[in-house]
Amino acid sequence: MSTPQSIGAQPRQASLLLRCPLRLGLAAELTNLVYTQGGAIQYHDQNVDPDSRHYYTCLKWDASGMKVSDQGMQERLHTMIGSGPDIEWSVRYSDQPMRMAIFVSKDPWCLYDILARSHSGEWNVQVPLIIGNHADMAPIAERFGIPFRLFAINKENKEEIETQQLALLKSEGIDFVVLARYMQILSGRFVQAYPSRVINIHHAFLPAFPGARPYHSARERGVKMIGATSHYVTETLDAGPIIEQDVLRVSHRHSVQDLVRFGRDLEKIVLSRAIWSHIQRKIIVHNGRTVVFD
Amino acid sequence: MSTPQSIGAQPRQASLLLRCPLRLGLAAELTNLVYTQGGAIQYHDQNVDPDSRHYYTCLKWDASGMKVSDQGMQERLHTMIGSGPDIEWSVRYSDQPMRMAIFVSKDPWCLYDILARSHSGEWNVQVPLIIGNHADMAPIAERFGIPFRLFAINKENKEEIETQQLALLKSEGIDFVVLARYMQILSGRFVQAYPSRVINIHHAFLPAFPGARPYHSARERGVKMIGATSHYVTETLDAGPIIEQDVLRVSHRHSVQDLVRFGRDLEKIVLSRAIWSHIQRKIIVHNGRTVVFD
Amino acid sequence: MSTPQSIGAQPRQASLLLRCPLRLGLAAELTNLVYTQGGAIQYHDQNVDPDSRHYYTCLKWDASGMKVSDQGMQERLHTMIGSGPDIEWSVRYSDQPMRMAIFVSKDPWCLYDILARSHSGEWNVQVPLIIGNHADMAPIAERFGIPFRLFAINKENKEEIETQQLALLKSEGIDFVVLARYMQILSGRFVQAYPSRVINIHHAFLPAFPGARPYHSARERGVKMIGATSHYVTETLDAGPIIEQDVLRVSHRHSVQDLVRFGRDLEKIVLSRAIWSHIQRKIIVHNGRTVVFD
Amino acid sequence: MSTPQSIGAQPRQASLLLRCPLRLGLAAELTNLVYTQGGAIQYHDQNVDPDSRHYYTCLKWDASGMKVSDQGMQERLHTMIGSGPDIEWSVRYSDQPMRMAIFVSKDPWCLYDILARSHSGEWNVQVPLIIGNHADMAPIAERFGIPFRLFAINKENKEEIETQQLALLKSEGIDFVVLARYMQILSGRFVQAYPSRVINIHHAFLPAFPGARPYHSARERGVKMIGATSHYVTETLDAGPIIEQDVLRVSHRHSVQDLVRFGRDLEKIVLSRAIWSHIQRKIIVHNGRTVVFD
Repeated sequence: MSTPQSIGAQPRQASLLLRCPLRLGLAAELTNLVYTQGGAIQYHDQNVDPDSRHYYTCLKWDASGMKVSDQGMQERLHTMIGSGPDIEWSVRYSDQPMRMAIFVSKDPWCLYDILARSHSGEWNVQVPLIIGNHADMAPIAERFGIPFRLFAINKENKEEIETQQLALLKSEGIDFVVLARYMQILSGRFVQAYPSRVINIHHAFLPAFPGARPYHSARERGVKMIGATSHYVTETLDAGPIIEQDVLRVSHRHSVQDLVRFGRDLEKIVLSRAIWSHIQRKIIVHNGRTVVFD
Repeated sequence: MSTPQSIGAQPRQASLLLRCPLRLGLAAELTNLVYTQGGAIQYHDQNVDPDSRHYYTCLKWDASGMKVSDQGMQERLHTMIGSGPDIEWSVRYSDQPMRMAIFVSKDPWCLYDILARSHSGEWNVQVPLIIGNHADMAPIAERFGIPFRLFAINKENKEEIETQQLALLKSEGIDFVVLARYMQILSGRFVQAYPSRVINIHHAFLPAFPGARPYHSARERGVKMIGATSHYVTETLDAGPIIEQDVLRVSHRHSVQDLVRFGRDLEKIVLSRAIWSHIQRKIIVHNGRTVVFD
Repeated sequence: MSTPQSIGAQPRQASLLLRCPLRLGLAAELTNLVYTQGGAIQYHDQNVDPDSRHYYTCLKWDASGMKVSDQGMQERLHTMIGSGPDIEWSVRYSDQPMRMAIFVSKDPWCLYDILARSHSGEWNVQVPLIIGNHADMAPIAERFGIPFRLFAINKENKEEIETQQLALLKSEGIDFVVLARYMQILSGRFVQAYPSRVINIHHAFLPAFPGARPYHSARERGVKMIGATSHYVTETLDAGPIIEQDVLRVSHRHSVQDLVRFGRDLEKIVLSRAIWSHIQRKIIVHNGRTVVFD
Repeated sequence: MSTPQSIGAQPRQASLLLRCPLRLGLAAELTNLVYTQGGAIQYHDQNVDPDSRHYYTCLKWDASGMKVSDQGMQERLHTMIGSGPDIEWSVRYSDQPMRMAIFVSKDPWCLYDILARSHSGEWNVQVPLIIGNHADMAPIAERFGIPFRLFAINKENKEEIETQQLALLKSEGIDFVVLARYMQILSGRFVQAYPSRVINIHHAFLPAFPGARPYHSARERGVKMIGATSHYVTETLDAGPIIEQDVLRVSHRHSVQDLVRFGRDLEKIVLSRAIWSHIQRKIIVHNGRTVVFD
């Protein structure tokens, strides 16, 4: 079941994301708990992986009339769900919007699209920080009143710069990072600090054309469609769990520059859809893949 | 054949748009004229309508090495093409970028998308003016440094306000108008002042769901895809020549609010594609339809 | 959760389709009942309509190890679900494949596609009968060894012919009817005999271009995409609940004949997807719309 | 410009496919030649590759009123076009329909789709021969009255069997071969005998997931769309020039079996579109890519 996106003043909403081995009746127990504690269910979707027999669910409720504190609800859920290596869950409330940092290089289209959405209230998110390895995007950050920090990273200073960046992210209370056409590869150490919390956009239909210059490769190979892929960053380049993909039809009439132009729109829309699902807490990562609820 | 979009400093490009009854050899005459006058052809596409036997073509050339003045070229083309009620053509040069006015009401997504593109150099266009019938979008105009003019139009003052608007458009040398979610119907007089030069975005897959509240109608009818349509405005509501359309798959799981959210992305992309084709001078309007070259 | 389509010998599967006003805990009661009676759940999807607060579900289980007879299960479900004007449900078992009658006129593409699927075991369905208002498709019926009955229907004999057709459908135990490019409008009396059990394919993206010659209308209007729509037939032409739709991009380069050619593929794929969902018992009709489970 | 597909009795049509280095005025010379020899142009599309500066064109005309014999036209074209290593062209007439051999293994969906089209007159093609490495498809061949030849090919006898197959293709006057889910890799020798004349369908969006079991790989990688690719076979597996591709959206809810089911429709439609373009003589292969005219 599906409910409208929160724009403007909305009642306080709780969202539970859970994955665990399939257990009969758990769905009913969870919805019953929410109901008896005064929550009005607004969204509930679930899925069972046919291979691993894992259960995935996303449950959202209006928490404004709860008879129990957040802490009390947390304890009751803990008792009900239990714990173990295969169990992962969390609850978050809509009055604690996520804090997002945006990493950029020189390309504006994804950055503009993200800022337009966050500033117009389309997304319930805070953007306290934009980080660039070039200064080109600083004027856009300024236009939207967001602090811009330049880190001129290179091979030699990479470890030190990343240490500074991680400290900055921590001090700003950043929940997740978006690489909006950030033309740098993050180290394993950085990625491990934000597991399933760094979202990248790759300008190809992965696993086709990973790495550099995918539009040139697409033109060279003569494909009839080009794509874009947003994914969580892992230590292996362009191999992380895919969140969203889309494609556009092209033909022999289109030059590499045409593909680049078409691709800009694909990239920004695919990245923004992925960010929306992340902010809405609709994504569960498991076994290198994502469950993305509608 | 296809050439890259002009971003940054480019040689001066001429573009010819022409429609006329099919005439054998005209294509060769035109390309030959350009060639012998020192132009290097960069793009040439053409089409013959199988019903009306009309010929449509778009021809672009690097005009930086022309041996003849713009006026001289105009005269030679006039001699070659001739004139008559069924013949329509024009040449324009890339160092005279079109001037676009944007009309808005309260919705930001199309406006942001247009301004991001015009400001980042993705489009060769000037935006000297934003007109609103509400003040909501004024801060966004200000953010991008563009004059915003509020016209609180209503049934009573419509004729007078439109007179003022037309005068303003004229004084600003506006070439074409974009209705970026402008929730007002233009009068026939206004439309006639800018024939095939007012671009609207309608949030449905026309001719399905014209008029008000199309997402509600789409949900009510239970369609499995929603769409958006950009078209030139004519005197009949939502019936003008279609420039571009696109759709997204939806299901019973989606509420009207979900459709509205999905629709925002469709609307802005479809509108911006239409504007791009207009700026690139790739559109010919004939018999209530468009020829849109790639 | 999702399970493979039945091809070849499969365990006996039960499927429950249910709609009723939302009732807390019903999902858990149902799955619990299936489980305690020896059924292994293979598929479970559900949805709540945000406006009507109706609950829709499709539940499938391996019924080969049930401890209770089909009749016994029916009684237990009846007790649990209850009855009333807003409640509708049914159970069906996979060893009773549905019986489908196909109505045709002169166009072969949908008929071929349906017969290829039913004959190759892609669908668990029986096709005992093809009815034509012209004889053109008789050789194809013969090629697949299916009885073909010609009814030369016209305005004068329509009531009598439909009476004969309904009698034939009844004597053949037909569960549902597919209009595979059948160029006749069924009477209200016929439609009422098979409510939500006559599937039509219309060669347009409804509600755009209902009625005759939609490709001509599409070309005339200058749309940039064409579509096809499969729907349950009701007494109002082309206004029944939509099951499936799809579209293809077209341009000014395409003649009506091109649209007709592209459309053939759209029509057969969209119709066959609708038939598959119907055979798989994944469709609930309510308030003039469909819920189509994945 | 675009003309209808030939169904039924049509005037004799000539089609010229040509690629050569760009030469000013050649298009006009060609259309002029056709015109002055009594041909009525029905289709003309052309393209210039921006990188190689090669010219590609497809020109079709009604040849029923030609003042010159086919041989005479051939000579005039030869004189006009010239010859050389970079020039390739051919003319073919619609009263010599191409002869297609279909290679199959055990899967029926592509075979059925091809036979339905060739038998209903949707395609102007002859199918004198179906070759299988298993006997499973023999009954379908028989249903359509087409000779079926079984070649139980394996590693040991591959060279000898291919020799027999090539002899059979030659004796039957086969113009091109379609691998309709033929689960064997052709040798280099076979491929060289039919350059750009063996069409394969691969059940993935190449270059993603080449080789075996692509749907399993797609599910394992967690992609959000699956695809199919038709291409000319070259000596490198799944690396030949791509003719057509398409994709469908999938999600975490879909099992490998769901992907296989969705994929069947993609495969047959993508393969049939490629065959149609080949039969219509709308494809030019150059530099490992295809130009596919509309």
